[in-house]
Amino acid sequence: MTLADHLDDFTRRDWETATDSDERVRFALVGLGWFTTEMVVPALRDSDRCEIGALVSGSAEKAVRLRDETGAARALSYEEFHAGEGVDAYDAVYIATPNATHLEFAETAADLGKAVLCEKPMEVSAARAERLVEVCDEAGVQLMVGYRMHVNPAVRRMRDLVREGFVGDPVLVEGSMCQNVFEQITPDPNQWRLDADLAGGSALIDLGIYPLNTARFVLDSDPVSAQGTTRSPHEHFAGVDQHVSFEVAFDNGVTAACVASQYAQKGSEFSVTGTEGKLTLSPAFFGEAQLTVERGDAAAAFSVAPVNEEREEFDYFADRLLADRDPGPDGAHGLVDMRTIEAIYESAETGERVAVER
Amino acid sequence: MTLADHLDDFTRRDWETATDSDERVRFALVGLGWFTTEMVVPALRDSDRCEIGALVSGSAEKAVRLRDETGAARALSYEEFHAGEGVDAYDAVYIATPNATHLEFAETAADLGKAVLCEKPMEVSAARAERLVEVCDEAGVQLMVGYRMHVNPAVRRMRDLVREGFVGDPVLVEGSMCQNVFEQITPDPNQWRLDADLAGGSALIDLGIYPLNTARFVLDSDPVSAQGTTRSPHEHFAGVDQHVSFEVAFDNGVTAACVASQYAQKGSEFSVTGTEGKLTLSPAFFGEAQLTVERGDAAAAFSVAPVNEEREEFDYFADRLLADRDPGPDGAHGLVDMRTIEAIYESAETGERVAVER
Repeated sequence: MTLADHLDDFTRRDWETATDSDERVRFALVGLGWFTTEMVVPALRDSDRCEIGALVSGSAEKAVRLRDETGAARALSYEEFHAGEGVDAYDAVYIATPNATHLEFAETAADLGKAVLCEKPMEVSAARAERLVEVCDEAGVQLMVGYRMHVNPAVRRMRDLVREGFVGDPVLVEGSMCQNVFEQITPDPNQWRLDADLAGGSALIDLGIYPLNTARFVLDSDPVSAQGTTRSPHEHFAGVDQHVSFEVAFDNGVTAACVASQYAQKGSEFSVTGTEGKLTLSPAFFGEAQLTVERGDAAAAFSVAPVNEEREEFDYFADRLLADRDPGPDGAHGLVDMRTIEAIYESAETGERVAVER
Repeated sequence: MTLADHLDDFTRRDWETATDSDERVRFALVGLGWFTTEMVVPALRDSDRCEIGALVSGSAEKAVRLRDETGAARALSYEEFHAGEGVDAYDAVYIATPNATHLEFAETAADLGKAVLCEKPMEVSAARAERLVEVCDEAGVQLMVGYRMHVNPAVRRMRDLVREGFVGDPVLVEGSMCQNVFEQITPDPNQWRLDADLAGGSALIDLGIYPLNTARFVLDSDPVSAQGTTRSPHEHFAGVDQHVSFEVAFDNGVTAACVASQYAQKGSEFSVTGTEGKLTLSPAFFGEAQLTVERGDAAAAFSVAPVNEEREEFDYFADRLLADRDPGPDGAHGLVDMRTIEAIYESAETGERVAVER
């Protein structure tokens, strides 16, 4: 490839297969919290491959308001969704409810024969995530987990470069993902993200999962063991981890050192150091990933227009459904994160390195 | 302070006390490896507070050649040094021999009543480092450990900012220090840095000590426990750690996630994330530290001329000797690193978080 190609093709949709289809996939959006309303709805309006078929909320009023704003066919309560109302208005289900309720909505989607795009983390525990995978498998519906990093061009180029040996042998990964949840999402201290039962944790399961999963994706390798430390000095984080630092050993020998916080200065970084080079995303995980590549004394910092990750994620999923191909980050892939997260939480309790169940 | 002051005073010697003295401290440089010859000798030529009084080497030829080049008074073999020859030619002793021999040279320096500036790591084990502290204490000679980061202006400004609350409560530290020892220092695979007996380890004790010690310095806090993973796939690292990732919990609650490698793409970074801001050194530990400060959505990247850290370190030590004040990173300070490093090596063996002995 010429250098011009590297720049011209940086943001290419290298995953796209169903380019000659003008079909669209109609989604039922389940859970109309800030992420769905602020991030997903605008992304889908900008998509030429997806449509909003139904809006599903615990608040009938919110569903109706958003239906009127978006021109979607249906507004449904959770009860109506579970009862299969409006099932003709959508082809697939996007689940963005509190983590502990992903399973029940996936069960209904599977019963209705609808493909499932489930937000990360999959559920609050590996056991519930396993059940979620089972119900989709048993019903024969496709399941993808919403790892938006997988469709970020800078992350994909990083993965390409690791695969082609740009850094030599990868040896060390560093990653961070921090935000102030009260500024980033909602000032409400009673939000579900701080409720252990509904969220299954906080800094690690909600944010640490970004560097963890990106390491797996970029390295093409899975964790064998992990350890970590959590801390929750702030009163609003009494039941969940406010801050976490953790270390993961991968089956290719690479080790990763990561931090995450739900109540700190916003920032995210991700790097892979190898025997002959280094790749850095800075920032990494807030949708505007920028890549710097280094080898020896030479470095190049790419500056590319950020893509809308949510649009890319939905379009990728739609592409896979239209082409009748399996989506990339599937349930089995997501399960590995859930088991690693449980290993890190266990390590934080016991002080011991914990093997990740395979 | 005005913004102009922040820039004008960035590289100020805020540690300087003996400004009206025109005395100079004459050093015996013990161990004439690459660091002494390439880094320290040029630094001392540039100093107006230090002089080279004697050059001490296992190679008489090397000592004589460097004496002739520098105009120093004496060239001494190790045997001559231990026998107290040329003792009138120097006031203080700089020890930059293989780690396992620091103690014996410190013992002689103490016997001769000379102040000691000992390179990091202090020795190959905490037990030998303790003995090193004892011999200096018993002889009443001053002992400083050569943590050059302590006199780096960017590191000092970072510490000032943490102290004055710029980041709110500090919560997470990230750090890395990687190099290819065969390109950075010497291509010789038989060098002492890869010999477990002489070096006491490699990636962690030689390089990981930078983010570890800088975290302690910037946070004003010491480790309570640590865990880590080491790996040595390359044949030349059979007896020592080639790569390390580790995690340290500090007594103020902060946790740090760090990586280091003796055989990887060169690079170093260090950051402190707090509840209200973030401070980043990038690069951090190769003498050209540059500071970026962030609060909320605002950031400022300082770009300052790098200082010669070795000159600053020797001048600082000379300043303390001339002012008859104790130097900052003393033996007790260095011991904490040695104990933390041993805890991390133990954790890498056992898989358990290890308390750091106090």
